Amino acid sequence: MTDIKQESLDLHTKLRGKIRIEATCEIETVRDLTLVYSPGVGAVSEEIARNPARVDDLTWRKNAVAIFSDGTAVLGLGDIGPLTALPVLEGKCAIFKRFSGIDAVPLILDTKDVDAIVETIVHVAPSFGAIQLEDISAPRCFEIERRLMERLEMPVMHDDQHGTAIVILAGLINALRVVRKEIGEIRVVMNGAGAAGIAAAKLLVTAGVRELVVCDRRGAVYEGREGLNEEKALVAGFTNREKRAGSLAEIAIGADVLIGVSAAGAFTPEIVRSMARDPVVFALANPVPEILPDVAKAAGVAVLATGRSDFPNQVNNALCYPGLFRGMLDSGVKRVTDEIKLRAARALAAAVATPTAGKIIPSIFEPGLHELVAKSVSL
Amino acid sequence: MTDIKQESLDLHTKLRGKIRIEATCEIETVRDLTLVYSPGVGAVSEEIARNPARVDDLTWRKNAVAIFSDGTAVLGLGDIGPLTALPVLEGKCAIFKRFSGIDAVPLILDTKDVDAIVETIVHVAPSFGAIQLEDISAPRCFEIERRLMERLEMPVMHDDQHGTAIVILAGLINALRVVRKEIGEIRVVMNGAGAAGIAAAKLLVTAGVRELVVCDRRGAVYEGREGLNEEKALVAGFTNREKRAGSLAEIAIGADVLIGVSAAGAFTPEIVRSMARDPVVFALANPVPEILPDVAKAAGVAVLATGRSDFPNQVNNALCYPGLFRGMLDSGVKRVTDEIKLRAARALAAAVATPTAGKIIPSIFEPGLHELVAKSVSL
Repeated sequence: MTDIKQESLDLHTKLRGKIRIEATCEIETVRDLTLVYSPGVGAVSEEIARNPARVDDLTWRKNAVAIFSDGTAVLGLGDIGPLTALPVLEGKCAIFKRFSGIDAVPLILDTKDVDAIVETIVHVAPSFGAIQLEDISAPRCFEIERRLMERLEMPVMHDDQHGTAIVILAGLINALRVVRKEIGEIRVVMNGAGAAGIAAAKLLVTAGVRELVVCDRRGAVYEGREGLNEEKALVAGFTNREKRAGSLAEIAIGADVLIGVSAAGAFTPEIVRSMARDPVVFALANPVPEILPDVAKAAGVAVLATGRSDFPNQVNNALCYPGLFRGMLDSGVKRVTDEIKLRAARALAAAVATPTAGKIIPSIFEPGLHELVAKSVSL
Repeated sequence: MTDIKQESLDLHTKLRGKIRIEATCEIETVRDLTLVYSPGVGAVSEEIARNPARVDDLTWRKNAVAIFSDGTAVLGLGDIGPLTALPVLEGKCAIFKRFSGIDAVPLILDTKDVDAIVETIVHVAPSFGAIQLEDISAPRCFEIERRLMERLEMPVMHDDQHGTAIVILAGLINALRVVRKEIGEIRVVMNGAGAAGIAAAKLLVTAGVRELVVCDRRGAVYEGREGLNEEKALVAGFTNREKRAGSLAEIAIGADVLIGVSAAGAFTPEIVRSMARDPVVFALANPVPEILPDVAKAAGVAVLATGRSDFPNQVNNALCYPGLFRGMLDSGVKRVTDEIKLRAARALAAAVATPTAGKIIPSIFEPGLHELVAKSVSL
């Protein structure tokens, strides 16, 4: 890690920005200027005044995505301020461009107030074809996303929720092929009830998981548990039907799948050994997973995924969002529906022809992968 | 005009956006990804958390400018909506990149409410090194700019005001050299009390003009005239010392300089003929000036400037803002002061070594011009 840290700092110091603006038009003569700017551009403005939909043919808007963060949940580092989110957002913008040609703009917000964030995003939204939210703390992220989806006629997606959920589902689909279990028959435990855990729980149930219990720091989330926030209460309504209470260690006994979006070391060998045959474990805490690969293997894990690029089976949002947004922009989708998320997950899963314990998730560099995800949107 | 309009529409249809985002970093291997994004970028976020000023070395922020418009005063077309401003803002972004390498982002606002505009811009401002305002109607533009300057520690400039004012002053300095008059001894009439007229009046007085009368549609603006808005009342306080009332035709009699930021045809040959010897006329209405060049010449105008690229002496904001913002970003200036505006105007004027009636304003393509303006900021 230390050398990656220093190398990354050095690279950022050298680059002074991982993205830049380029002009697509020539400006070499006075004539060029009159076409690109006043008076020629007046004709373009008038055309858009007559027919507002034409803005998508005549400007960059249909290919432009804004990524917003208030810096309250930056990577695994917590609420360290909006400025610290800027290099993260720039990284996403560079990834957007590299994998699907989208023009993404990083926008950090100097307020943590939910109302102010919603109003600000609504007011600049017409500049873009879609909105991505990033590194906004739970449970505020749920309300912000919900209100934006109500107000805006364009795709709005909090990537820490749905990007993660989609890649988790993709990985799970292939893990189940490896261990030969059916999605409708497994017991899943989700450890972590933040943005990613809640969204993944929702998507897994939509995908057909019948038995699922979400755990937070206080153990199993169940209907009627005291002090649940709005989002956890909602999740309690469609998970943990038996209203089981108990610690993670108690709940995990006999589970087929254990998914951690929690903290380093949360999964002990004892917990893993108490699971059903051929345990599937996703230990997604970053940079240090809930259980390390060698420990997991010794405890009998059949398929392990982590959030790390230096271990097999990396659950990485970047597998999903470039293609997903490409597909939504191209097909004019206005809402990120459950159906779209399911299709994206299935497209990602199908990109691995023959899943094995060592490869349930495709490589981000796989030729055609992002086009496949993009096409899934309009299937 | 018709062929320029059609050609511009065709060009915009072909380009589908005059700007695009490019990644400055390679993403070809898993290692690249870990440096550009998580986990490597975490070190960059932590560094910025420790030392917030480092954001300017480690991201694109110090080279990034946002251009905001609410679409209430789009070119000469009026309040035709934010979407119609997007191609105009993109044009400015392309010009920024072409002439001074700045990464400018077009942001249109779906609200006309002054409070909402100010709050929105304040909330996204930390994403950028400077803010430019564009095509916002008067007198709202004055309040919006003033409040943003109070709230933000970065350059904020409404280009329709100050960009225009700076280029007008530059042109005036050279026009006076041609007609051999001193700035402290001339009488100036400014026709138009919108964004550009008000700002130009302020800057000319700061530059040493002692006798100046601003006219609006009701004639001369003077202290105590009924129904003046806040900004015109302010201007009345330091112009028109004799509190003259009267129509433009009455006020222009004996004037040395007549500047129009008003409407086509506002300057008749009679008005021009009533001026002092060697009249200087800036007829800046677009696309049709207050008086056409051949009419002006026949009426005895000594030096004429317009806003048009197909006539000599084009007063064009694009002469100023690329270099001015380059200089402000590079030197870490936090305020666009009168002194900075004066220096920029003088730098532009000095770029024409020997002014003549046919050339008081440099060409935007003049080698070194924008660097000269940039350097003037920190002189």
